[in-house]
Amino acid sequence: MIGAGQLARMTHQAAIALGQSLRVLAAAPDEPAAQVTPDVRPGAASDLAALRAFARGCAAVTLDHEQVPQEHLRALVAEGVTVHPGPDALVHAQDKLVMRRRLAALGIPGPRFAEITAPDDLVAFGAPAVLKAVRGGYDGRGVWLDPTPELVAELLAAGTPLMAEERVPMRRELAALVARSPFGQAAAWPVVETVQADGQCVEVLAPAPGLAAERAAAMQELALKIADALGVTGLLAVELFETADGVVVNELAMRPHNSGHWTIEGARTSQFEQHLRAVLDYPLGATTPTAPAVVMANVLGAACPVAMSVDERLHHLFARFPDVKVHLYGKSERPARKIGHVTALGAEMDEVRRRAALAARWLSEAVWADGWSEHEGATRVG
Amino acid sequence: MIGAGQLARMTHQAAIALGQSLRVLAAAPDEPAAQVTPDVRPGAASDLAALRAFARGCAAVTLDHEQVPQEHLRALVAEGVTVHPGPDALVHAQDKLVMRRRLAALGIPGPRFAEITAPDDLVAFGAPAVLKAVRGGYDGRGVWLDPTPELVAELLAAGTPLMAEERVPMRRELAALVARSPFGQAAAWPVVETVQADGQCVEVLAPAPGLAAERAAAMQELALKIADALGVTGLLAVELFETADGVVVNELAMRPHNSGHWTIEGARTSQFEQHLRAVLDYPLGATTPTAPAVVMANVLGAACPVAMSVDERLHHLFARFPDVKVHLYGKSERPARKIGHVTALGAEMDEVRRRAALAARWLSEAVWADGWSEHEGATRVG
Repeated sequence: MIGAGQLARMTHQAAIALGQSLRVLAAAPDEPAAQVTPDVRPGAASDLAALRAFARGCAAVTLDHEQVPQEHLRALVAEGVTVHPGPDALVHAQDKLVMRRRLAALGIPGPRFAEITAPDDLVAFGAPAVLKAVRGGYDGRGVWLDPTPELVAELLAAGTPLMAEERVPMRRELAALVARSPFGQAAAWPVVETVQADGQCVEVLAPAPGLAAERAAAMQELALKIADALGVTGLLAVELFETADGVVVNELAMRPHNSGHWTIEGARTSQFEQHLRAVLDYPLGATTPTAPAVVMANVLGAACPVAMSVDERLHHLFARFPDVKVHLYGKSERPARKIGHVTALGAEMDEVRRRAALAARWLSEAVWADGWSEHEGATRVG
Repeated sequence: MIGAGQLARMTHQAAIALGQSLRVLAAAPDEPAAQVTPDVRPGAASDLAALRAFARGCAAVTLDHEQVPQEHLRALVAEGVTVHPGPDALVHAQDKLVMRRRLAALGIPGPRFAEITAPDDLVAFGAPAVLKAVRGGYDGRGVWLDPTPELVAELLAAGTPLMAEERVPMRRELAALVARSPFGQAAAWPVVETVQADGQCVEVLAPAPGLAAERAAAMQELALKIADALGVTGLLAVELFETADGVVVNELAMRPHNSGHWTIEGARTSQFEQHLRAVLDYPLGATTPTAPAVVMANVLGAACPVAMSVDERLHHLFARFPDVKVHLYGKSERPARKIGHVTALGAEMDEVRRRAALAARWLSEAVWADGWSEHEGATRVG
């Protein structure tokens, strides 16, 4: 796997069960996956020589993130390396303009959009608009909600290719996660609701509450159609905006995705195992949920220095919520940095959501900043 | 963790979620856990210098197997190393005679037993008897079902300390798995039935079918009582024989145990996560089952050469049983060697058991030796 972040870290856990060990290309030795797998090759994803050395002897190469140059992937494929997803598919997760044009050609619902090559283009596009970097943005970076012609001029001068999208009046965000193998087999998990804060996902509700079965099925079909049309191999996460009269596609990701972390405990086959099964062209696993309601909440680094270490907070969390599952990524704490996630499961979504949110706060700053009093049952154990 | 077998391998998977990475002491670089963790220290558990170097910097030291000399563990403890379980507890899993005497003193039901220091001792003990090596036996090794005075003479001459136990007329074998933390918190999973073949566990049914709730609770109490009395820290597996009028204790293990592999998918907290939580003195996790019926079946190496590789067999298994979970240990195949296990979950024990058994055979020799015809739905995918 190119990249050694938390997605590679959790993929390694799944690889172990399959009798394998994940090799990762790591830019630094303390990256989340590099801490836990013995097969770490140093190097940047932008370095073709490092990629070549890394790929030698791999049954298949896949990705922890999209920041791998197309030309490098094409060079690897030309040299006989098996890469999933392949560059022709991956470009749709790397280049938002290519993605928008392709989805529009396929008749997939999306917002009105236009390439922006001059400040006047933004004026011509009209408001309300969202300005996006065509390449390289993630977790809210590379997205500007109230763009001005001056901002466009500044970004273009800095060499950032830009596009504008209509601001879609949406009710909420959803995500449809599917897997597709080179053989052509596909599998879909239930459609989930994703809750964002400051541009990054903080909470995922599975299944999406109040979503009619036929609408959910239509979204799964949409994601499977995209996976098939684009020739995706491995996972495809389709981020969706739910509007008054349907959905529009927001973004695509072709790898394990934050919106699928709930599947580790919440589905018979996790997204990490499924990604490996797809990439290695094994038959795919069952996506059946293991509970009526599953909620994943991200654990974010504290905004201000906290007296209690993450480890000490973990003691409290375990004492208070013995049935919540914790995943820590081995990352140092920085404000709002995703350092882990928690998953709660149960019979009733509101109750499960309350529990997951409280557990995530327990590991984050808010509990400590707000004081103990508002959290019932806080006791010191261990 | 001292030792790098499959138990350490699966413990590493659990450690990753807790934000940690497991250090293992490995006798060989290709041992199951040594393949998947970066922190591998070479050495034998019988080598005190290797143990000392290994333990340096560890928050706590625990064990993948019982073959660690008491005097070495005592030396580590004397030097300030935190060892869980400690040597005073562990001796009861290392020395069957010490264990029998202690459990008898505690009033825990067990078979009649006697130390055997001469061939005549066996004659005096009477039949039917089981002869056991006091130390070092596992998976059927070190156990002789129809012992003769000649065998006793031979084993004693070879330096094997021996004991005899009454052969208990039993209905079936059960196991009660509990965890206990240094703080004194304890947790118990449902009592399971273990099915043995040739002296090793091949199948685990969770919960034990047809076991009355009050009898199951009494067995959990029994295991918790033993854990407490012996000062066990970490996991304790109590192997039981169910008899006409109750149960007797067969063996003790103080580590993750084959009878608990089902908990990876079948319980809210797996035995591997729980062992780490106990050893690190975190509050323990919920042991609630995730399905009404869970069956684990061991995958054994084929008895004769098989044309199809394990990997190819895995393709077939995944195609046929998309909801069965597979755990392979990275071990080369040898006849009857445990190279992995499968877990099936569902609503009804007989159906789940049939599925798990067929899946395990799919990965083992029998399917191929018997031919395809008896297995419905065998198709070639991938």
